[in-house]
Amino acid sequence: MTLYVHKYGGTSVGNLERIKQVADRIVQARQRGDRLVVVVSAMSGETNRLLALARGVQDPPDSRELDVLLATGEQVTIALLSMALQQRGCPACSYTGGQVPIVTDRAHTKARILDIDTGRIEADLAQGKVVVVAGFQGVTGDGDITTLGRGGSDTTAVALAAALKADECLIYTDVDGVYTTDPRVEPRARRLDRITFEEMLEMASLGSKVLQIRSVEFAGKYNVPLRVLSSFVEGPGTLITYEEESVEKPLISGIAFNRDEAKLTILGVPDRPGIASKILGPIAEANIEVDMIVQNVGEDGSTDFTFTVHRNEYRRALDILRRVCDQLGAREAAGDDTIVKVSLVGVGMRSHAGIAAKMFDALAREGINIQMISTSEIKISVVINEKYLELAVRSLHEAFHLDQSPA
Amino acid sequence: MTLYVHKYGGTSVGNLERIKQVADRIVQARQRGDRLVVVVSAMSGETNRLLALARGVQDPPDSRELDVLLATGEQVTIALLSMALQQRGCPACSYTGGQVPIVTDRAHTKARILDIDTGRIEADLAQGKVVVVAGFQGVTGDGDITTLGRGGSDTTAVALAAALKADECLIYTDVDGVYTTDPRVEPRARRLDRITFEEMLEMASLGSKVLQIRSVEFAGKYNVPLRVLSSFVEGPGTLITYEEESVEKPLISGIAFNRDEAKLTILGVPDRPGIASKILGPIAEANIEVDMIVQNVGEDGSTDFTFTVHRNEYRRALDILRRVCDQLGAREAAGDDTIVKVSLVGVGMRSHAGIAAKMFDALAREGINIQMISTSEIKISVVINEKYLELAVRSLHEAFHLDQSPA
Repeated sequence: MTLYVHKYGGTSVGNLERIKQVADRIVQARQRGDRLVVVVSAMSGETNRLLALARGVQDPPDSRELDVLLATGEQVTIALLSMALQQRGCPACSYTGGQVPIVTDRAHTKARILDIDTGRIEADLAQGKVVVVAGFQGVTGDGDITTLGRGGSDTTAVALAAALKADECLIYTDVDGVYTTDPRVEPRARRLDRITFEEMLEMASLGSKVLQIRSVEFAGKYNVPLRVLSSFVEGPGTLITYEEESVEKPLISGIAFNRDEAKLTILGVPDRPGIASKILGPIAEANIEVDMIVQNVGEDGSTDFTFTVHRNEYRRALDILRRVCDQLGAREAAGDDTIVKVSLVGVGMRSHAGIAAKMFDALAREGINIQMISTSEIKISVVINEKYLELAVRSLHEAFHLDQSPA
Repeated sequence: MTLYVHKYGGTSVGNLERIKQVADRIVQARQRGDRLVVVVSAMSGETNRLLALARGVQDPPDSRELDVLLATGEQVTIALLSMALQQRGCPACSYTGGQVPIVTDRAHTKARILDIDTGRIEADLAQGKVVVVAGFQGVTGDGDITTLGRGGSDTTAVALAAALKADECLIYTDVDGVYTTDPRVEPRARRLDRITFEEMLEMASLGSKVLQIRSVEFAGKYNVPLRVLSSFVEGPGTLITYEEESVEKPLISGIAFNRDEAKLTILGVPDRPGIASKILGPIAEANIEVDMIVQNVGEDGSTDFTFTVHRNEYRRALDILRRVCDQLGAREAAGDDTIVKVSLVGVGMRSHAGIAAKMFDALAREGINIQMISTSEIKISVVINEKYLELAVRSLHEAFHLDQSPA
């Protein structure tokens, strides 16, 4: 008998009507003979309501107490969903993270799962019950309530699927799968039937926020087949699998983009060993995260050094870079916060030459100037002026025939 | 160093402003050098909001899942109060019932406390922390969340005070103590400085709803000094003590009354052994609770039998009694749902004759007809027509000089 872990996010359980719809869906699945563990988030808006209460008394709120407070959000949902299932004649039983228990480390508000005891859940499943588990939360070894941070319910679902050796983990959300790119930018964007874990990781880290990146890593590590699908529309969604299991191997799976970056450049730096750390050290000390880094050594023995940061950190980073510029005797520190990053993602590019050339050619034909290039094994990213974003995405979508299903 | 358990009910923590006021009060107490454990209820309205959600999906809601849902109410309050204390520089730490743990039996929605492990609380107290505990909730031996039923937060506070051997348990509420009678009926009603546990039990069971009766029983059993006081107005409140410890021994402590009763009478019953059980057996089988019972044997060998029930059960009880009347060959079954019960309560009456006579005399002087009389060691109750309630209470208050402090 197959065992599925379902996960329903905040909008899927946003009010009593939607909770009842989720219950209907679960009852149908159970009638097909599936054994089911269901992970739920807090009703949409609830976590923000609780955060506002907390900030009304302490700012910033104590992290241990904040976890006690926020954990009530999912606790409400598990009780209501279990009741809705029972109302439909479906035996069901709820568990908080602490009751399972899902044991985490002590890092309040961003805890990591250390261990899951599946004993109680397996006993309930053996009795034919649907088990409803609170996502996002756990408990330390000495009984303190913890939360896994935003999006942690996905992680709970994947971790439970791994611990229970479930056949599949189904993440129900408000989109019906993973697309070749954002349909709001390219209306011809196509839902992918399958995507590999590695591609999904690149897509997620590049701003396609269908799944929490930690849950994808977790699923990959423990070999849990993951499916993203809509809780509102029937459909197969997108299956996230290991490359080896994938029958469909397109060159390119999708185009991701990120509007939240800004570019910083220091020009004419005397090229000596240790220059990179002298530039990035002060940036790291200021707790500013760096994304792309590109360095080119010029012919005159001086070098240009460029990197990108989150756009919110642009001003702080530029101030730091100007001081570094003086200390190093570099020519100039400059920046640009009107850039975007566009990336082609696909495991197929590993074994195919010419992908980069085809990409650059497609952009050049539209007169789009490339300011930075960075590549990894399954991804090519370029930085361009933000005004070209939509044009670049559509040109690449067309050049790589992403609107057509691979044969 | 003295150890106090404070308990704040729903109206005392009804919004963020009130939670901050409670925090201020606790900080003051701590500055006097007291060690403090604080028990809180859900914010007022929250439990009803959660109940409405539950009934929106399952009616009646499953009791196990209802407890999971309702327990979130106090969990929100403990986190917010701990944060408010920390914001004021006061180290504080919160615990749910399950985290303490407060172990209960498995009777969901009306569980009874079996055991409290005070280890974590005592460790926190030793570190100078204020410990904030969720009232109303516990956990079974195998980790299921339970609740103690309405008013259970008082019971939590008293049980914690007993387990911790606290010097006093302070119940903060929206009244500033226990009164000689209801001030809405007799404006000259006086706040009592002290009252014995036994008197408090009689007052509570007779409708003076300052404290939950179970918590008073618990406090008496474990010898926990209990104080009722206002969370809005400064004042000493009323201390509930053992009789032996009381310096103040008035004849009468107060006048309680109950408007929720109805009277049923079966007249001309052939007086044979077993008559009482033949009359009350069918009433008990219908799950109707009986309060006062009075039987008088007449000279003709027949008897009249009268008892009171809750007014909501009047119609059902009368229907049953009519059937019983036929079976027993009694003359008539009759009833009256326009009666009230008025009671004098006081440990002093044990050692003083003439209290009953003085009471009946005071009522007779006002022309109030007494329909039933029932006495216990520290209480005399009479049933009268409901139209005389206010008059009776004021006459008795005056006759026993309850507006004046005992010398």
